[in-house]
Order: sequence, then C-alpha cells, then structure tokens
Amino acid sequence: MNVKEIEKKIATVSHLDIGQMYNNDFLLTWDRTEEEIRAVLTVAEILQGMRDTNISPRIFDSGLAVAIFRDKSTRTRFSFLSAANLLGLTAQDLDETKTQIAHGETVRETANMISFLTEVIGIRDDMYLGYGHSYMKEVSEAVREGHRKGVLPQIPTLVNLQCDLDHPTQSLSDLLHLIHQFGSLEALRGKKIAMTWAYSPSYGKPLSVPQGVIGLMSRLGMEVRLSYPEGYSLIPEIEELAATNSRAAGGTFHRSHSMAEAFTDADIVYPKSWAPYEVMQRRTELLKAGDSQGLDELEAECLELNKRYLDWECGEELMKLTDEALYLHCLPADISGVSCERGEVSAPVFERFRLATYRQAGYKPYVIAAMMLLSKVKNPTAVFSRLLRDHRTARETI
Amino acid sequence: MNVKEIEKKIATVSHLDIGQMYNNDFLLTWDRTEEEIRAVLTVAEILQGMRDTNISPRIFDSGLAVAIFRDKSTRTRFSFLSAANLLGLTAQDLDETKTQIAHGETVRETANMISFLTEVIGIRDDMYLGYGHSYMKEVSEAVREGHRKGVLPQIPTLVNLQCDLDHPTQSLSDLLHLIHQFGSLEALRGKKIAMTWAYSPSYGKPLSVPQGVIGLMSRLGMEVRLSYPEGYSLIPEIEELAATNSRAAGGTFHRSHSMAEAFTDADIVYPKSWAPYEVMQRRTELLKAGDSQGLDELEAECLELNKRYLDWECGEELMKLTDEALYLHCLPADISGVSCERGEVSAPVFERFRLATYRQAGYKPYVIAAMMLLSKVKNPTAVFSRLLRDHRTARETI
Amino acid sequence: MNVKEIEKKIATVSHLDIGQMYNNDFLLTWDRTEEEIRAVLTVAEILQGMRDTNISPRIFDSGLAVAIFRDKSTRTRFSFLSAANLLGLTAQDLDETKTQIAHGETVRETANMISFLTEVIGIRDDMYLGYGHSYMKEVSEAVREGHRKGVLPQIPTLVNLQCDLDHPTQSLSDLLHLIHQFGSLEALRGKKIAMTWAYSPSYGKPLSVPQGVIGLMSRLGMEVRLSYPEGYSLIPEIEELAATNSRAAGGTFHRSHSMAEAFTDADIVYPKSWAPYEVMQRRTELLKAGDSQGLDELEAECLELNKRYLDWECGEELMKLTDEALYLHCLPADISGVSCERGEVSAPVFERFRLATYRQAGYKPYVIAAMMLLSKVKNPTAVFSRLLRDHRTARETI
Repeated sequence: MNVKEIEKKIATVSHLDIGQMYNNDFLLTWDRTEEEIRAVLTVAEILQGMRDTNISPRIFDSGLAVAIFRDKSTRTRFSFLSAANLLGLTAQDLDETKTQIAHGETVRETANMISFLTEVIGIRDDMYLGYGHSYMKEVSEAVREGHRKGVLPQIPTLVNLQCDLDHPTQSLSDLLHLIHQFGSLEALRGKKIAMTWAYSPSYGKPLSVPQGVIGLMSRLGMEVRLSYPEGYSLIPEIEELAATNSRAAGGTFHRSHSMAEAFTDADIVYPKSWAPYEVMQRRTELLKAGDSQGLDELEAECLELNKRYLDWECGEELMKLTDEALYLHCLPADISGVSCERGEVSAPVFERFRLATYRQAGYKPYVIAAMMLLSKVKNPTAVFSRLLRDHRTARETI
Repeated sequence: MNVKEIEKKIATVSHLDIGQMYNNDFLLTWDRTEEEIRAVLTVAEILQGMRDTNISPRIFDSGLAVAIFRDKSTRTRFSFLSAANLLGLTAQDLDETKTQIAHGETVRETANMISFLTEVIGIRDDMYLGYGHSYMKEVSEAVREGHRKGVLPQIPTLVNLQCDLDHPTQSLSDLLHLIHQFGSLEALRGKKIAMTWAYSPSYGKPLSVPQGVIGLMSRLGMEVRLSYPEGYSLIPEIEELAATNSRAAGGTFHRSHSMAEAFTDADIVYPKSWAPYEVMQRRTELLKAGDSQGLDELEAECLELNKRYLDWECGEELMKLTDEALYLHCLPADISGVSCERGEVSAPVFERFRLATYRQAGYKPYVIAAMMLLSKVKNPTAVFSRLLRDHRTARETI
Repeated sequence: MNVKEIEKKIATVSHLDIGQMYNNDFLLTWDRTEEEIRAVLTVAEILQGMRDTNISPRIFDSGLAVAIFRDKSTRTRFSFLSAANLLGLTAQDLDETKTQIAHGETVRETANMISFLTEVIGIRDDMYLGYGHSYMKEVSEAVREGHRKGVLPQIPTLVNLQCDLDHPTQSLSDLLHLIHQFGSLEALRGKKIAMTWAYSPSYGKPLSVPQGVIGLMSRLGMEVRLSYPEGYSLIPEIEELAATNSRAAGGTFHRSHSMAEAFTDADIVYPKSWAPYEVMQRRTELLKAGDSQGLDELEAECLELNKRYLDWECGEELMKLTDEALYLHCLPADISGVSCERGEVSAPVFERFRLATYRQAGYKPYVIAAMMLLSKVKNPTAVFSRLLRDHRTARETI
C-alpha cells in the first residue's frame, strides 16, 4: 500500500458511523454493527499500510496496556504487545501467579489498582463456559465505576483476547485474510465456508474460535457450513445466532455431521478441534466445585471420546472435494505425523498452506491495534490525517 | 487542575530547599526535611495535573527503571512501572527466581550489572526486621561505588517501595489523600488520626505501614493516636521518633490499647493488621537460622494469637465514636464477610469508603514519579517550565 | 568522549566494508571479517560516547526486540534489554515455561508468530554441544522464509547471546576492555593472553566463553595461550581455528596443561572454569535420550573430577609470575572464601580487579546495540550524522 491508497482507506472510515466505539470495549463481534466491523478492518489495513510505508502511527507518548492471560499464550500475547507498542503504549502482564485475582471484591479492586495510567486492558479467559465474558464485563464495570467516581482519569477500554463465547481478534484476522485472498469483503458474498470439527489428541480446546467464525462469517452473505460429530455442538444460542445472521444477510447456514458434506465445493475450510459442549459444561461444574481430580478425569474421558473420530482429519482426499479451497487455521495446528501421530490436518495439506496460515495470523496485531485506536480516539480520520502530515518515521531506513 | 494552577504549584517548588535530593535516594521520610517532603507532594500534584491537562512530563528518551520485589506485589508494582512509564523510563523486574540475589559480594556485583543504563531502582523488601533498609543501603552504596569508579555513567537512585522500617510511597500517598480531603497541609494541624491495629486471619503483616504513618503524620502538628493490643508494639525506636516529632511539631502522640479510645472524636482512622513486634523479631532469628519449619510454626502461632483480638474490627459502632472520620487503608483490606469471615473492617464501613481508598491508592504512581524526578533533575522548576512550553501531548485527544 | 571525538569515530566507520552486515545476523565472530569486527567495536564506542554526551541514539519509534533465554541469566538479559531500549525498541522475553519451543515445525512457526513487529531476536542457548548454534540458524532461516513469503514486513536479525560455539557479545566486550586498557587495537599486537581453565565447585559450565576468546584474540597478532588439565579440551575444531587464525595474523597459539606456564610473563589472564569436552559430549547424548537421572549423575561425576584440580586457582603466587597482568572474568566468578570454599580466583586477586571486571561487563550493552544497529541500518555513517545533528537529549540534564 502506498500513501495514496492509505488516504483512500482513511476517507472510507470517515463515512462510517462509529460514534459508539469511542471509550467502548470490544468484546463480541455480534454486539457491533456492520459499520463498526468495517471500521476495525479498515483501520487495521491503514495501520499495516502505515507501517509498510514507514509512517509511525504512535498516538501515545506514555501509558500502559495491561494484558491479563488466564491461559498460556504466545501468539496472542505477542500480538497484543506488538499492537500496544505500535501505538506507543507499554504492555504489561498482570501475572496471576504473582497476584491472585478472584471474582467479586478483588476483581473490582485489582481492576482499578492496575489502571491509574492504563489506556487498554486485554483479557484472555476462555476455558470455562459462563466465565470469560462475564469476567470481562466485571472488569469493565469496575474501571468505569472508577472513572465515574474520580479514581481513574481515563476509561481503560477492554479488548477481548478470547473468551468462552467469542474470539473477535481471531475471527477478524481470519476475515482480513479472506478479504486479501478473495479481493474484497463484497467478493465473499456467496462463498462457501466449512467450519468443521477435527480430531486432536491434545486437551479439550475452547469453543470460541468456531463460535467466533460462524458468528462473524454468517453476517457477510456467505454459505456457512458447520460440521461436527454428534455431541460436539457449540453453545446452542450461538449456533442460533449464526442461523439468524445468515437469514438477515441473505446467506445460508447449514449444520451437518459429515466433514465430507461440509467440504464439498467449499471455497474455504477451517477444520479445528474443540471439546464437546457437554464436556465444557461439566468442566465448569467441576471447576465451581474445585474438583481438580474430576477435571483431570474429564479431560482423559474427553480425549478418549475424541478417538472415535480419528477420521475427522483434513487430508488431501477431503481437500479434493472442495473447490480448491483455502485452508484456514488459528494455529498451532495438530499436524498428523509432525506434532502428533494423528491430528487435525495431514502434513502435506498443512505444508501447502503453512505460510498462508502465518499470514492469516499476521493480521492480528493490526486488528488489535485497530480496536485499541477506535476505542481511544474520537475522530480517527483527523488523527490519521495528522499522522500522515507529521510523517514521523517508525524505523530508521537510511 | 488547569495550566495556571500547575504554574502556581511549580512556582512554590522553586522556593523550597531541595538541593540534597538530586542524585539522592528516597528511603525514609524521617531522613528528609519538611521542605523535601513538601517538594515530593507538590511535584506529585504537578505531575498529576500535567497528565490531567494532557501535557507529557516525559524527561527521558531512554533508560531503565529496575524493580526488585522480594515479596509479591500488584499495586506497588504497577505504581512503580506507571511512574517510570510517565517519565519515559522502561520498567524492568529483576526477578529473583531467575537470578538469585544474596547479600554481600553478589549484591554489589548484581547491583552494578543491572545498572549500566539504569536511572532508578525501586526495592520492596519488608518481611524481616533489620534487613530491608540495610539491603537498600547496600545496593545504594554498590552503585555509588560503581559510579565513582567509572563503571556506571550515572547514579541510579533508589526509591524505597517498602522496607522493614518505612513505606514512604504509601504514607505520602496517604498524606496527599488527606490534603485533598481536608483542603491543605495546614488544615491537618490539630486533626486527630487513629492509627490502630486490626484483626486479620491472614499472615503476619509487616510493620512498615503503621510505622510510616506515625513517622510522617507526627510531623504535621496532628494529634496522632497509636493503638494496639498488648504485645503488638511497633519498633520501639520508631514509636519514640513519632513522640519526638509530635513535640517538635506542636502536636501530640498518644499510645493506648483500646480501639474505642483511639477512635473517639477522631477525624481520620487507619485500622490495619500487623504482626507483633516480638513475632517479627523471632521471625528474623528463624530466617537467619534457615529454619523454614520454625517460620511456619511461628506463622501459625501468630495467627492463633491474633484470634484473641477478634473484636479489633472497624465496624459501624466504632465509627460512630469518631467525628465522622475518614477511613484509610493501604489495600487490600481484610473485609469481614467478604474476603474472610472476620477481618479488619466490616463490609458496610468498607463499602462506604471503598472508592475513597481507591483514590487514596491513586496518588502512589505520582508520588513515586515525583521521587524519581526530584532525584534525577537538578532544577525541577526549569524542567517543568520547559515541559509546559513544549506542551507535548501525552495522549491523542482528537 | 566529546562530540569531536565521536565524529572522528564515525568517520572511521565510513571507510569500513560492512555491506554484508545489513539485514544479517551476528552469530560467530569467525564468520565476520576484520572490518566487520572493527565496525562493531567502533559503533559500540560511538554509542557509548553519545550516551555520555547525552545525545540519544534512538533509531526506532516502535518495534520489538525479543529475547529467548534457554538458561538463567541476569547480566546478558539486562545487557540485551538495555541495548534495545537505547535504540528505541521494546525488549520482550519469550518465556519458554509459558510457551514451549521445540525443534522442527514449532520453531519455524513460533519464530514467525513472535516476529510480526520484531526487529531483533537475541538468543542464549549454550548448554548442549551441537544445539545452540543450529537452533539459531533454524530460527534465522524461519524468519527469512517468513520475510520472503510475505509473512513478515522486515527481517528480524539475530544476535547470538551465547551458544555452544561462541559468545561474541562477551568476547567483543572483553576486547573493548583490552583496547581501553592498552590504548588501541594495534597495541594488543604481541601481547600475551592466558586463557586458562580454573577450578569451580559449581556446575559444568559451557565452553563458549573460552572458545569465543581464543577465536577472537587469535586474530589480533597476540600470543594466545590456552591451558587446561588433561581431558578439559575445548571443541577441537575451534582450537584448530585459533591456531590457524594466529598463523594468519602473525601471532602465536600455545596449548599447555600448566597454569603457571600460561601465566609466566602474561599481559592478560582469563582464568575461568568449564566442563571437560568429553563431559559436554556425554551430556548431549543423555539429553537426546531424555535421561535426566543420567544428566544428574554426570553432573556429580564432573564436579568430582574437577576436585583433582583444586590448585587451578588464580592466586597471588600465580599473578606474580605475570607481567603485572590484567585479570579478566565474564562474571560471576567463583571466589575462594567468598562465594565458595575453593574457586576460580582468590579473594585478594579478585578484589584488586573487581571494579575492572565490572567495567569489562559494562561494554556489553553497547556491543549488543552495535550489532543491532549494524544489522538494521544500511548506512550507519549517515544515520549517526543525522542523530548528531538532531541532538535529541537522552536524559533530562537541567
């Protein structure tokens, strides 16, 4: 992208109704309007374009971006801190092994204690149904109360880095990747995307990636196909949401229990493991009861159950059914014969798309930065114009 | 605060004798003159005012601020790194699980090895009598030797983030909170402050908070009341210091063993648990002997002992004895029925003052930044004038 | 150094052939030409000079410098992050306890996932023969592939922070120290340097420090003496390399099994413990077999073996044999009667050179920053000229 193209993108942002994004959190894509979604995508592209043309998009001289990870993470962690760094914020982990966050009083207090100079809080909390999203809302309410009552001079806005319901920074990176592959957002209309379960020998993975994908892609007039073995459903309300979205957007939403059916003539395939909904529910109950032995047993049972579906693997045979489909994965993938004996995807298929999946992941820092920026500045068009005018270099280039 | 008011504050700093603060550590409030204390308070207010009017107080383009925590910490950690970030320094933990600091040779060496580009070192070491303060002096001497002998191009100055004797960033934040509540430093003269022990079911807490409070508040002409069960005295020398301070400042200093007596007609109450002095002394001996089982047993004994004083809880009945007193706490508080069955304060009392205690904590980043700034610049008035003239924005505001 | 002297240094860089350093890694000194070595030394001095005259050498407005430590570290860690900070990059650890890096697929993927906005990657991996250097090459190839295939907008360049073969940031810091002690690089010609083994009661230390020292110092026309007990050889190929270097540079390379012989008339002594080559080889085999009990037993055996050479201690008697030699150590040293009962160096000898060893270590941040800068800018002379012209201050000095 050159400066002219960046300016064109900036102009399109000025026509979008994004008044509700300022000082607001980004928690679920389905809480945001289509114009707000477009704003995130376009601002992400502008930021990426600015970096590529070596114009610094720094809008902060100081300030913190706090990351709260209740789960191990490399990719999302680095995406978050890269995004913070790009805008001039210093990322800081709130490490729970050092601090102890619990629910209730402690959440309210800690949320304020870490926020005196904090502009953004990123949270990843995806393992227990009914917890991640509500924890984020609790933190959000706490800092907003703090701001209202004179504790905090600014409102730290939240970015959902993965919860039990949605994974918006992932699904929007996926979407940016699709836009670049297919040419435009409009070009996705009518395209067939297969979001399918796949076998994995590792732990029972969260539901938020497939939920995030069907929740977002169903709004674009695509033919969305969700497929999984019996018993591996997602949260029913989110499957319903996808169906409703599809009707409204002039697309379709199909469910099946056959990978082959979902793959047939597909333009895009997204085969990925997750834990059965029923297992996720029991996990939550065991967590509430503090039954760690029960959790271990459930985990073993879940992996045993998975073995009945070893053939849910994305191999060349299945890929041949598709219309030369693009393979997507949020990474890391369980690759048969590479990272495990049998996994989500065969080695040859993965290798063909390996660098494409890296590029898919590469949009995430810009998506996160876009969410941050849109929540922190009132008038992004004016801000970008000034940044282009100042033309402060991001990196030495002589 | 608007720019005019900030300028007025800056003008008052220019009249203070602060020549001894440059290139000096901030370890104990009682080592600093009244004018130096006033300088910290005023500079903290200036920095907070600058942030509120979006003028960046950044005085470093690069440089490190190293944090050494020998105890878990969220609040102080974030305060320290926020302060560093505000001035343009990058905060970096020296994590002892990764590095191993011991006394003696290793302290001298490590202190220099982490300081080649370090401007400030913050240390928290509060658990053992006779250790924290002397460790800080050891580090300070090591880096000063390093600077004298050409190892370090600058003197990294120390900020005491809590030692066995004092907790100056806490007591000065408390004082700023009082100044804002009562209108001015002068308005505190004659006010009655009850620093009292309170029951806690958790570990034997350090003495530095109450010691810091009586050591500082006794210099302001206040009526300082210290109250605790028999055997729960603070370090005797510091109690004596408070008595001496009070006489010199035209205030009073009372000791009692009754919470009710201390609360009667009080303007300010600060009920907070700490371990008995005698327990603290034994803990130090056990530490020296490397007797970790003995330490566990002492801890259990200490908590058992505490139970004799379950009624040392700040509830509404006690609050009614006061003159509509302001409740202070350094957080986190042990709240009865919330964070524990019986604790330091009843839930209704705490809830009434919850946001006030958050605001109390909110001064700490600015107090730490003020200590840093006063130790790193010779002429704060000139520096502030230039910062106001440059008017570099701290955050995007369009 | 004043600005005039800095300008003179900058001028000398413009005459060096450093075209191969741009976008290139710094892994082994023996892969770099003499002019490239001179460039690192001179740029390190320029950066140190700029800092001393308070001119900020910041060339990045944003960007990450990722540190991967597969071994505990304080000194190198702080050197790396100080260097990054000086140039405007934010250092970020890739903590393997949080992330899990293995060889193969995972290395390729993780290397790209952490690099979307990463300018530099520093790696320390020194414990197993045949692993550290090849791991670095694997990471380097992965990010270069990522750049070629449109995943990464820039090439993150690598800095070797210690591998199984070399420790270039150490040996170049050692060399800068020697240049400052003896006046110039040319003054080192003909000087006698004794790189000798020394007794240590602690773990079997890596070979990379002595290998790095003989690999570099042998290129300067020095008389290099390598001495160790029978069985404690370094990697044979690297001993050969030093011999070849010495012949080419008009110096000499001697091996012996006597500390006294090596010390006699020496100008510089560098007594330092390492594990026997044969132990290092067995350690690697045990690692491959995942035999952690075997590794523990080997460690015990190695320390037992060391005890036969308790007299390999750098004491005053040995120092008297030298020509008032300068003592070097990479720190931390095992000091007899201080950090252990018997160690590498006697307390009086170490104490005489203690601050000198601190200064020796103090060059490392600048050496690392020089490696970073030379790999990230095409025309360092032009960059420095602009930095001098801009004269942005690094620290407030009023």
